[in-house]
Amino acid sequence: MSGIRNAGRRGPITLLTDFGTRDGYAAAMHGVILGIAPAAVIHNAAHDIEPRDVVAAALCLERYWLHYPRGTIHVVVVDPGVGSERRALVIEAEGRLLVGPDNGVLTPALRAPARSVHVLENPALRRDTVSATFHGRDVFAPAAAHLVLGVAPSEFGAPYEDAVVLAWPAAVVRAGVWQGIVIAVDRFGNLVTNIPASELEAGARVVVAGRHETSLRRTYSDVEAGGLLALGGSDGRMEVAVSCGSAAHRLKVGVGAAVQVFAPAAG
Amino acid sequence: MSGIRNAGRRGPITLLTDFGTRDGYAAAMHGVILGIAPAAVIHNAAHDIEPRDVVAAALCLERYWLHYPRGTIHVVVVDPGVGSERRALVIEAEGRLLVGPDNGVLTPALRAPARSVHVLENPALRRDTVSATFHGRDVFAPAAAHLVLGVAPSEFGAPYEDAVVLAWPAAVVRAGVWQGIVIAVDRFGNLVTNIPASELEAGARVVVAGRHETSLRRTYSDVEAGGLLALGGSDGRMEVAVSCGSAAHRLKVGVGAAVQVFAPAAG
Amino acid sequence: MSGIRNAGRRGPITLLTDFGTRDGYAAAMHGVILGIAPAAVIHNAAHDIEPRDVVAAALCLERYWLHYPRGTIHVVVVDPGVGSERRALVIEAEGRLLVGPDNGVLTPALRAPARSVHVLENPALRRDTVSATFHGRDVFAPAAAHLVLGVAPSEFGAPYEDAVVLAWPAAVVRAGVWQGIVIAVDRFGNLVTNIPASELEAGARVVVAGRHETSLRRTYSDVEAGGLLALGGSDGRMEVAVSCGSAAHRLKVGVGAAVQVFAPAAG
Repeated sequence: MSGIRNAGRRGPITLLTDFGTRDGYAAAMHGVILGIAPAAVIHNAAHDIEPRDVVAAALCLERYWLHYPRGTIHVVVVDPGVGSERRALVIEAEGRLLVGPDNGVLTPALRAPARSVHVLENPALRRDTVSATFHGRDVFAPAAAHLVLGVAPSEFGAPYEDAVVLAWPAAVVRAGVWQGIVIAVDRFGNLVTNIPASELEAGARVVVAGRHETSLRRTYSDVEAGGLLALGGSDGRMEVAVSCGSAAHRLKVGVGAAVQVFAPAAG
Repeated sequence: MSGIRNAGRRGPITLLTDFGTRDGYAAAMHGVILGIAPAAVIHNAAHDIEPRDVVAAALCLERYWLHYPRGTIHVVVVDPGVGSERRALVIEAEGRLLVGPDNGVLTPALRAPARSVHVLENPALRRDTVSATFHGRDVFAPAAAHLVLGVAPSEFGAPYEDAVVLAWPAAVVRAGVWQGIVIAVDRFGNLVTNIPASELEAGARVVVAGRHETSLRRTYSDVEAGGLLALGGSDGRMEVAVSCGSAAHRLKVGVGAAVQVFAPAAG
Repeated sequence: MSGIRNAGRRGPITLLTDFGTRDGYAAAMHGVILGIAPAAVIHNAAHDIEPRDVVAAALCLERYWLHYPRGTIHVVVVDPGVGSERRALVIEAEGRLLVGPDNGVLTPALRAPARSVHVLENPALRRDTVSATFHGRDVFAPAAAHLVLGVAPSEFGAPYEDAVVLAWPAAVVRAGVWQGIVIAVDRFGNLVTNIPASELEAGARVVVAGRHETSLRRTYSDVEAGGLLALGGSDGRMEVAVSCGSAAHRLKVGVGAAVQVFAPAAG
């Protein structure tokens, strides 16, 4: 596809970073994109990922990247290795394009069944001067802008097969009991686990951190306000929640805590 | 109007939620909207409402919904009852369209003199699978997208007359003295009251929480930096403020505190 | 150029404020702009500047204003003097337009070699009623909207030559030693100084607050994770950083701390 341009069918561009907004770094990325592609539409996915939290960014990306239409360009810059020898990548997967550093942050796209990966190394497709500390502005924003104009991923550099993929912790079943962990705590204090909710039976007994017990319900209002419950989250993962409250605060439990699910007691 | 489509005259879409941005929930809403209505323009009003604070969201909405032009679609998702039997609504008022849960969060539009309300219940106008926990993505974002494409509110479901309206606390006059309360504290620490500023005389004596006394001025710089004052806020409510500081911090006063306003002493 | 309209070549509009988003003030500005200029494209640069921190806003603006293309309209509202006699300004510089209060917040544009400054005083180009506390909505948003429609800066009011320019602290060289200070701490805890990185030699010895010593490197990964270093920041200023950490937390140093740079010891 090298050299083929399909301007007009691509976009919007989404941005996910740990830059915050108050320092002007995210705004600089916007400006650089528009300087190259003035008609680009840019959506801020989030800029408040905890500094350098590559796993949190990958989980965030996982929640939205496929909801955007084909042609969308997702930019992810959580990049503690900026300025080192780590590669910069462009991925094509499920009809979407993604750019970001090769540190696992693009894992959701790398797990797609068919995907192509190229290295961002063409100096004509980055800013003339590339700083050692801000590739969001100097490498990734220009890449997104050129992509939205129709530049093919293969024009950026060589194919690459060894991209870093995060080893998501996998929940396992042992002796009929699901063994998993808390992989994220969301803004509501819900404990998001790595246990697939679709595999569980209503009423299943759930134990968190070896000491807090509850059962699997359908929705928050199936218990009284303040009650502890487990339920299937909107992304298919089992979550532990407090109705109208924060499970993280109540249980004093965070990422990494053990979670077990037992089949419901027989009638 | 059922079945009449007026594509092209509607939009933009605004989003107001308590989702934050770092978990990717708000971005998922953006993606779903664009998947249905690729040309939709989306503005983030705010995503940092305190979790489940329906009153704060309604006050926030009140400050901007009528500043947007006719045809705007305002989406508000602060929805502690998600997954329960609470209804989902679409409102047409003052030429704007609003969607959100039936929990009072749409109160500013429900108080408009002429408005129509319909229930969001047409399964063809939501996502194929609706989760029990994320109607922002599965119900409200699709509704906004279909509205921007020109679908009439009546196509979503039956008219509804019993929508929840928040009982804003009303300030009252007793023996010539205004009696009100603090209904919000803004980012600057200004104490926003339910007392209408237009009813007050310049120089009126203001007492907060029974113990802090000041008087009504026109603007912050009418007192020295650090000085306490009352003034008419930009939304017509009397506010108590500290010039170049935070009244909330200084007075250690928050939502619910009593406020009294006495006519200025006779010359 | 008075009266010449060049609609269609201007935009987007960027907004930088200390309003936060949860109170609805920033959204009100969006709404007002679209009410006047329905096709305007609006980018949120940042709304989380610390309340009234004019210097932080000017530094933020400096990082992005020239990355946006010519024709962009940058709105900056950090405005502790709102409602006082302070002027409101429109500046044309480097092909960009800027509006904001005359308190130094527009300093980056005022330092451009050729720029014109006019006062915003034409009542036909603001809201009919101007509040004493919210010129972001009543003065600056309408100004941006009229500018994007092609209104010339000179239509807003008289030329003005005495705009407030912030006296950025200047670093100096004494006896071959650079003497500067920390002027900002970014989200990562990097200490941004007023010392120009381009003037320094690799390996130069850096002393912070008289007691923390390190040396000038090229990028974060030139030291081990957790190591202290100095480097040239993306905006040309020397920064002091901790690789994969926060220099501000580690050194307990903030804005105003002294920084010295000595030439590297001779081979």
